[in-house]
Amino acid sequence: MPSYSPRHFRALSFHDVVARFRDGGDTPRAYLERCLETIGVREPEVRAWVCLNEAGAREAADASTQRWKAGSPLSPIDGMPIGIKDLLETRDMPTEMGAEALKGNFPKRDNAAVWALREAGAVVLGKTVTAELGGSHPGPTRHPFDPARTPGGSSSGSAAAVAARMVPAAIGTQVAGSIIRPAAYCGNWALKPSQGAINRGERQATSMSTHGAHAGSAEDMWQVMIEIARRAGGDPGRMALRGPDAPPAPRRPATLALMEGEAWPRLDATSRAVFEALVERLREAQVTVLRASDNPALAEFERHLHGVQEMCNSITGWENHWSLRALITNHPDGVSARTKATVEAAERLGPKGYEALLEKREALREAWRALGTLAEAIIAPASPGPAPLWSGDVPGQPLEPRPTGDTVFNTVSSALGAPVVTAPMMAVGGMPFGVQVVGPVGAEAAVTAIARWMGEAIEPVEG
Amino acid sequence: MPSYSPRHFRALSFHDVVARFRDGGDTPRAYLERCLETIGVREPEVRAWVCLNEAGAREAADASTQRWKAGSPLSPIDGMPIGIKDLLETRDMPTEMGAEALKGNFPKRDNAAVWALREAGAVVLGKTVTAELGGSHPGPTRHPFDPARTPGGSSSGSAAAVAARMVPAAIGTQVAGSIIRPAAYCGNWALKPSQGAINRGERQATSMSTHGAHAGSAEDMWQVMIEIARRAGGDPGRMALRGPDAPPAPRRPATLALMEGEAWPRLDATSRAVFEALVERLREAQVTVLRASDNPALAEFERHLHGVQEMCNSITGWENHWSLRALITNHPDGVSARTKATVEAAERLGPKGYEALLEKREALREAWRALGTLAEAIIAPASPGPAPLWSGDVPGQPLEPRPTGDTVFNTVSSALGAPVVTAPMMAVGGMPFGVQVVGPVGAEAAVTAIARWMGEAIEPVEG
Repeated sequence: MPSYSPRHFRALSFHDVVARFRDGGDTPRAYLERCLETIGVREPEVRAWVCLNEAGAREAADASTQRWKAGSPLSPIDGMPIGIKDLLETRDMPTEMGAEALKGNFPKRDNAAVWALREAGAVVLGKTVTAELGGSHPGPTRHPFDPARTPGGSSSGSAAAVAARMVPAAIGTQVAGSIIRPAAYCGNWALKPSQGAINRGERQATSMSTHGAHAGSAEDMWQVMIEIARRAGGDPGRMALRGPDAPPAPRRPATLALMEGEAWPRLDATSRAVFEALVERLREAQVTVLRASDNPALAEFERHLHGVQEMCNSITGWENHWSLRALITNHPDGVSARTKATVEAAERLGPKGYEALLEKREALREAWRALGTLAEAIIAPASPGPAPLWSGDVPGQPLEPRPTGDTVFNTVSSALGAPVVTAPMMAVGGMPFGVQVVGPVGAEAAVTAIARWMGEAIEPVEG
Repeated sequence: MPSYSPRHFRALSFHDVVARFRDGGDTPRAYLERCLETIGVREPEVRAWVCLNEAGAREAADASTQRWKAGSPLSPIDGMPIGIKDLLETRDMPTEMGAEALKGNFPKRDNAAVWALREAGAVVLGKTVTAELGGSHPGPTRHPFDPARTPGGSSSGSAAAVAARMVPAAIGTQVAGSIIRPAAYCGNWALKPSQGAINRGERQATSMSTHGAHAGSAEDMWQVMIEIARRAGGDPGRMALRGPDAPPAPRRPATLALMEGEAWPRLDATSRAVFEALVERLREAQVTVLRASDNPALAEFERHLHGVQEMCNSITGWENHWSLRALITNHPDGVSARTKATVEAAERLGPKGYEALLEKREALREAWRALGTLAEAIIAPASPGPAPLWSGDVPGQPLEPRPTGDTVFNTVSSALGAPVVTAPMMAVGGMPFGVQVVGPVGAEAAVTAIARWMGEAIEPVEG
């Protein structure tokens, strides 16, 4: 039976261990061996990994051990074992993207962020399971707190590996809700940065997608992101994520805006009650929480949220359809029915339909900017509830619409290109349930500071 | 001896032949065979092509012949033989990018623009030579009007194939000056669109690069671009090139601005005199031509042009360095010294240096916007003179700085993300010399209309 409690769960962390690397009480190699031990125990059920490079990781951990001993680590994450979502290229492991069609694909180069992690001394341990091509056709990963449930997707393996304490952090990617949703389902901390703030390397095909970090702690989450940004920079033509070298200190916000939009009606009753209780605790802590029902400006913004989920899916579908159509042509049986359907929808949309959606997205961003300084950040549930049960598509029957869960609470920040952090502040029925903090473009440090404050000052809610 | 004359050279065109496809006086297959015949004669010297798919082209031309006979061509370019720069992926031919390291690379998919061309019925005849990886290490192509000279680069083969009347049009790409410069050297018409206006497909790595068309006529140049845009759209998140379905009618501008900037001192004396004579003919045709020397606003803009060429090279160097570094790591002997030097320069620049250059670029764009409606377009020479002589790097000696010619007149429109057309209006010493028309972002149709007017109303100048 699920038994997660945000008050009692002890996530794996790294930032609080490094002092012992310095004094010799622990070593990166020993830390890695503990991770491998956990993987040995949990992986047969969780199935978070596509492949592991144990030999390479041990070599990297040994080198890190030497650097810490010599007092010259490359960064605060030197020696951190980390998982890489299997959409990103890695020089030492294949990149199969959860697709039959890409079995054995091995470009033998590092994505810019992976390169940056190695430059910072991180130990690239393995590739984590992704839903097929970053879409919604699930991989084999099961939820670490309940194997009958999806861990969410598409960053399924990264979210589950962190929740199962296999690694302190893992890289995910988000187009619609692929970082924040699985992170929330799995009780991770996670940061999806502003669009363009982390160099995506070879993964530039879409106008809404980012790399982000899943972690067991806010500190490790921040540190991973800032170390990447300082080395790999932002996307071509974009400024990199900015912020302090160390995790931003917790900061209580004066005013938050609660976003409901088209997502709100999909909240189940218990999850809604739990979230409302969290809001109440924020108010008790002297935070003003605005809602559309009592704030006309917010209500005006929320009118723009109608259809955002569908808009995100359609925009990304069009942007991906060239490469997916070619993949299907070359591997007719190597791509799922689910992915084929998204390509067909994109071909029906066409370039004019696509441009109409870009205009709609720009109008949404304009409405968001028009809110000005109304609130320091938006808060909302990070999903419509805890991770749903999912037992697989049934051949011959219509596909379930959302086998890795519903992105409806995530697509707003994706569409806005806005930074968002999810914090593991709630549980529903013994399963994790996250609260997300969305800030203005470029405000990664501010949303992290607010989320950290919530994590430290607000009592978690369980229901 | 070079003997090009813009008044007498008869470029190969397609738009004026299609009427005969309709009445059966000619066919796309026969047109293709004439192209292949020319290739048979000229290719041994010019070396414009990396590979040809003659069988596939004949099949496509036969299908087009049937469509024209049936009165149902897919577009005005149905049946047009076209060359594709070997940086773009093609499903039926390898994509080797002029690099030893990529010999045999065969992704078996079409770039979005190539896909669109096939959808429009164009006959994808072959891959044209590119300087290595789109940089400045030249391929084997020689100038069609003088084999001792470079045809320019990096779209060397596309420019030369059009000038040698092998095809009526070819696709090039430009980061700094890789469409407009070789087109001007070779006497082509060419359009580099606004940044993002043509979907680059898999080629999204840089913040300044576009696909564009080289053609023997303004009409074919426009038609190729609009047919791609209508099918493939723009880059992710960007609006596609807009304009009429048929080539924009010639239009006399009231006011043009003559751009000098850092490029002007590099014009050789004869080329300058020829260009000044062209300006004089524009004035005689009642066009006001402003210059920085008598217009303070233009002088202010020109102050921002200092260092633009170096800025462009450095920005692109940084953006490309992840993938180039990986290529060099995997193929230490498969990449030229010239390209290795650009990667090393990027690594010295670092992400902070890169961001400082993005700020400089944004200031330039701001200064450009501040010109407002001062002039309808900018004109300038498209290169510092005709194609230079080049006999090859000499092993053991320092590399020549610019073996495919000097981009200094081209980097401004690249940095601005602005559309530009070069028109074959001049000759110097029996070699082509182009005039370029640069317009505001999104003004592809306007610059085409102005360039067409120049081509029809202004007598070419030779010197």
